[in-house]
Amino acid sequence: MATSRPLYRAADLARLLNPQSIAIIGASERAGSFGERTQLNLAQFQGRVHLVNARYQTLGGLPCHAAIAALPEVPDIAVVAAPMEAVEGVVQDCVAAGVGAAIVYAAGFAETGREDRIALQARIAAVAHEGGVRLVGPNCIGMLDYAGGATISFAAVPRPAAAPGRAAVGIVSQSGNLGFALAQGVERGVAISRVLACGNSADVDVADGVAALAEDPACAAIACVFEGMADPMRLAEAAEIALAADKPLVVYKLATGEQGAAAALSHTGSLAGSDAAYRAAFGRAGAVTVENFDALLETAAFLAKAPPCRAPGIAVVSTSGGAAIMAADKAEVHGVTLPQPGPAARAVLDARIPEFGSSRNPVDITAQVLNDPESLRACADALCADPAYGAVVLPNGYAYDFATPRFALLGELAAQHGKAAAVVWLPEWLEGPGAMAAEANPQVGVFRSMDRCFAALAAWQGRATRRAAGPGKTSRLSSPEATGQAAALLDAAGSATLTEREAKAVLAIYGVPVVGERLVGDADAAVAAATALGFPVVLKVESPDIPHKTEAGAIRLGLRDAAAVREGHAAVMANAASGVPGARIKGVLVQPMVPEGLEIVVGARRDPLFGPMVVVGLGGIFVELLRDTATALAPVGEDEARAMLRRLKGHRLLEGFRGMATVDQSALVGVIRRVSELAADQRDRIAEVDVNPLICAGDRIIAVDGLILKS
Amino acid sequence: MATSRPLYRAADLARLLNPQSIAIIGASERAGSFGERTQLNLAQFQGRVHLVNARYQTLGGLPCHAAIAALPEVPDIAVVAAPMEAVEGVVQDCVAAGVGAAIVYAAGFAETGREDRIALQARIAAVAHEGGVRLVGPNCIGMLDYAGGATISFAAVPRPAAAPGRAAVGIVSQSGNLGFALAQGVERGVAISRVLACGNSADVDVADGVAALAEDPACAAIACVFEGMADPMRLAEAAEIALAADKPLVVYKLATGEQGAAAALSHTGSLAGSDAAYRAAFGRAGAVTVENFDALLETAAFLAKAPPCRAPGIAVVSTSGGAAIMAADKAEVHGVTLPQPGPAARAVLDARIPEFGSSRNPVDITAQVLNDPESLRACADALCADPAYGAVVLPNGYAYDFATPRFALLGELAAQHGKAAAVVWLPEWLEGPGAMAAEANPQVGVFRSMDRCFAALAAWQGRATRRAAGPGKTSRLSSPEATGQAAALLDAAGSATLTEREAKAVLAIYGVPVVGERLVGDADAAVAAATALGFPVVLKVESPDIPHKTEAGAIRLGLRDAAAVREGHAAVMANAASGVPGARIKGVLVQPMVPEGLEIVVGARRDPLFGPMVVVGLGGIFVELLRDTATALAPVGEDEARAMLRRLKGHRLLEGFRGMATVDQSALVGVIRRVSELAADQRDRIAEVDVNPLICAGDRIIAVDGLILKS
Repeated sequence: MATSRPLYRAADLARLLNPQSIAIIGASERAGSFGERTQLNLAQFQGRVHLVNARYQTLGGLPCHAAIAALPEVPDIAVVAAPMEAVEGVVQDCVAAGVGAAIVYAAGFAETGREDRIALQARIAAVAHEGGVRLVGPNCIGMLDYAGGATISFAAVPRPAAAPGRAAVGIVSQSGNLGFALAQGVERGVAISRVLACGNSADVDVADGVAALAEDPACAAIACVFEGMADPMRLAEAAEIALAADKPLVVYKLATGEQGAAAALSHTGSLAGSDAAYRAAFGRAGAVTVENFDALLETAAFLAKAPPCRAPGIAVVSTSGGAAIMAADKAEVHGVTLPQPGPAARAVLDARIPEFGSSRNPVDITAQVLNDPESLRACADALCADPAYGAVVLPNGYAYDFATPRFALLGELAAQHGKAAAVVWLPEWLEGPGAMAAEANPQVGVFRSMDRCFAALAAWQGRATRRAAGPGKTSRLSSPEATGQAAALLDAAGSATLTEREAKAVLAIYGVPVVGERLVGDADAAVAAATALGFPVVLKVESPDIPHKTEAGAIRLGLRDAAAVREGHAAVMANAASGVPGARIKGVLVQPMVPEGLEIVVGARRDPLFGPMVVVGLGGIFVELLRDTATALAPVGEDEARAMLRRLKGHRLLEGFRGMATVDQSALVGVIRRVSELAADQRDRIAEVDVNPLICAGDRIIAVDGLILKS
Repeated sequence: MATSRPLYRAADLARLLNPQSIAIIGASERAGSFGERTQLNLAQFQGRVHLVNARYQTLGGLPCHAAIAALPEVPDIAVVAAPMEAVEGVVQDCVAAGVGAAIVYAAGFAETGREDRIALQARIAAVAHEGGVRLVGPNCIGMLDYAGGATISFAAVPRPAAAPGRAAVGIVSQSGNLGFALAQGVERGVAISRVLACGNSADVDVADGVAALAEDPACAAIACVFEGMADPMRLAEAAEIALAADKPLVVYKLATGEQGAAAALSHTGSLAGSDAAYRAAFGRAGAVTVENFDALLETAAFLAKAPPCRAPGIAVVSTSGGAAIMAADKAEVHGVTLPQPGPAARAVLDARIPEFGSSRNPVDITAQVLNDPESLRACADALCADPAYGAVVLPNGYAYDFATPRFALLGELAAQHGKAAAVVWLPEWLEGPGAMAAEANPQVGVFRSMDRCFAALAAWQGRATRRAAGPGKTSRLSSPEATGQAAALLDAAGSATLTEREAKAVLAIYGVPVVGERLVGDADAAVAAATALGFPVVLKVESPDIPHKTEAGAIRLGLRDAAAVREGHAAVMANAASGVPGARIKGVLVQPMVPEGLEIVVGARRDPLFGPMVVVGLGGIFVELLRDTATALAPVGEDEARAMLRRLKGHRLLEGFRGMATVDQSALVGVIRRVSELAADQRDRIAEVDVNPLICAGDRIIAVDGLILKS
């Protein structure tokens, strides 16, 4: 059902996002009731509010209507403050009246895990969808539109001190509580345009929200809290829309661990999915993933303010030696460079900074210079003007009013030179004097952690690289005919697990280099094949029922002469028969023994949520013990496949570590792409591909085994 | 000089820490002057303030004295607000008058890197030390004693809303700016007893501060910002004192990266030292190391409040499904367990929590229960009473006054059951309503990050384990005679690099199992030795000038017969001569070829700051490529050596991964201890030991090579 629906775009959600009229279904005067609180929260709404409750003719002096049908106009939004049992009927009324959207508060639906409630929720969603009513919820805390005053919720609504400026953050959250926790940032000066909470996401979900915010002119960056969804590729698609619209998207993913995923399953109907797959999908779309909730709003607010990245270097202008060292530590952790100032900047710094400071980057201008506005301006200006720097970071150690003008100065200079600026707020007086001024500055990002500041700077730089690479469409390496040829082979295979010979034939169609082999029926034929191929050889059983040949003892390596081949043939046949009783034995494969090299594993699997994924890892211990693998959505292009290799912890091994073979990375990238194309093309036929190992030495890259499981 | 001085204890610093009288040297009426600001900052001082300035008779109606000698009493503290040039004379006056301590603000000393200023600082420190005046600084921001009102600084002083309660944090910071940034926590309700900033640490340093705070009844936990020091073992010693006094010590180390260390060297005269060595030293003493500055005060404040850990399980009582999942994610990251409630607690939870919540841990009581105080009390009480739990975590999603009573309730229940309690403050309104009440609660730790909360819980549990293990004194494995015997061999060795044979002899004295060998002078003797030892054998050159035999081609492995030995002998001699021209060749070693096993590296080095350290790593790629090693101060005991093995990323390899050999960890622990004893005993003779590789299979553990560099 909804999983295959195209994303709602801003136009599809226009009445929800910019309502002119809102009806409260279940309006009430009872203090603390959802109806009463919703009405109070709409005090600043610029449109018309209508009350619906059959029990009253008026409420607090305002007319109250018996039903939606009785309203003087068709509302854009119906806020359903009715109890769970009444929701289905209310939504039917909304459809009948032509309401634009319904926001449903009531809990007790799919999140209970009860079959009947899951069915009820699905029924309501279907009624709404077919009737053209956009359904938000159920189990939803509401929606906050700060620009239009449509702050719809039964909960307390965070109120900004001032209207959000242009560089505002739009928030989309699967968790209402966490979305509103972020929204409370408005109380300390963070500019937030809108909060969309999706509750059980029966209709409108996080992906729709991201896509809609990407088209919202009031939104300069998107912060998204995400737990899981039945078709997460929709979120990846929304991320691509945000990328195209140049709206930075920052995602905090819940349920990343096994415990968290289990908790998620018990809390909602969502599928948490595999963390690696989510990262792959978000990474492809240029989205920034943060590890911690506390990084989400800070990072999004910085990205909303930051101009395009013009140079990879960062300048740190500190007033304390300790803070300067902290900046250098964290720059290193996040791979951000702090180049030294050029001669022009250096001359200014040398002239202004006292001998107990430092004019090397990270620059320590000392508290003394800070008390001299002209000196501070000169130093900061020199750093902003230096072409080595794309951004300037000012660690701030004191929360006092006298520090406030510094943030304005920093913002002014950064704007003048087109650079990004960030303040790292070190005082434990988290909202002390000056903090709101820094936050309100349209040029200055504010972080309460040096670590998060440099993580965000690294993400800002990475996003620039991703955008420069252009849209993610990839050319294809394998031949157009491969799709049909491989499909025919797969369909012809007699079992769910292909034999090695069959699997290698499929891989070969896609241009994956595989070791040659001959299938033989007896020892004499094995000797003849070995002689023809050249010694030493390998013998392996060929059987769809013995995918793990080593464990079964059905493989013999490095056979150097005819006698060894005869002996090996007997052993392979005997072990295969005794190891897997009843296995269908199609014969024995004779293969040349491939010389040593670095062993690499390339595989693919069809993720139940994301579809085909390609995985690469360094063979043996790296994959098995350290789980050192990189995953991407299939198919992958050149840049993405290269990036996968760089992500491997052991990537230096590819460069020829300690006398081991070097690996031609272009050739390896080609193999990864071809396997990914196989997985993508044959997504309906293949559940799993395992090319293990691929023996690599220079540009000699060859698969000596292959396994394909059909779906 | 000061590096070898014993730690100052509280008694040594009594006049500094609890002054009855303070003199301001360089008192002034000029607004903004250091003298004026110091005087204003002392308005709440409970003792007597004296003003010294030869230019005035009175200042603001108070008497002003011409010199320290002219004061009506000998002050406990002289605050030296005089310029750099005058400091030496003032300190001499302090000594002459018998002042207890001098706090020197002026910068421009050793931190400039100038030879003359370094010498000046050393001279002043020596005068003070010999004269019995405790010197704080120079280049020091001051000292804050909240209990006595001795808030001495030229900078703005953070002022607590209320006097700190019993569970206050004491702060010691090498960086004045960062120390005061932490102190601003008082503005939002954090209880802080005292801030000691050390400036250039010419006399009193961070280690003295930690030791003194360990004995300060007003201090319940210590937060320390540390960059580096000439003799950091003093800080490790202070940490042991804190451990013995059961004062949790939390350390944030600056200059952890290469860039940071370089910045540190340019900013101060401190030695940043190696991060691994610091961690080893702090870890041994049960100190908690935090990775980020923003974790420091939160963690210390929690540990100041938390009772002893009674059970390893943590209960999470959340009001939001999203926050519950976040808690489960972070518990997993930090290795903290969230066991399920027992039957008694489960019955209460099941009865109270609605169907759309969850009575499984992490418990989601939903916002509905939160609005019902009786229900919340019942659920929280049931969890606090459950013996599976040592602590209860309450994620709080809203900053509103109505949430405030919940924190009091949580604190009350936790206290009643002797459990720790923590609130995770999720709203981005960082100091919104309720935050100060939570902070002020003597039982409740407050974190603004789920990640930091679970990191702190893990540290709290780890500290309990460390304390349960008792003092770190370790029994000795190697024989008492080893010290003298090995010293004699080391002294007798003719070169700085011992030959393999010599190194193995030293290792053998300490009971490290080494492969046998014969030293031969020609090919015939090599064949005879191989025949006696049994084939296959290994040949290696024996030379003090060729420590890296593999690279020189001066080693031959797996020689199976006499002919191979002859050929190998010739090759080894030829390669040794050509590879390292002029090398002194003492002959060729013939050794039995040790069967395969897991290769492990055990080494030791003398750190310039920490002295002998022992290092263990998995051989080959793990050490070389992934830098997967564990370091500890030598000598190590049983528990510590075992903990080193557990810290290795590849530790599962020891358990026999994928058909590889298992390793008897007790035997391996023994070898690590023996190498550590060698390094510790011979610290004056040995710079480096490298036992590489140690071939391990079961309890057969044998060193097949050894390298020792003399110092």
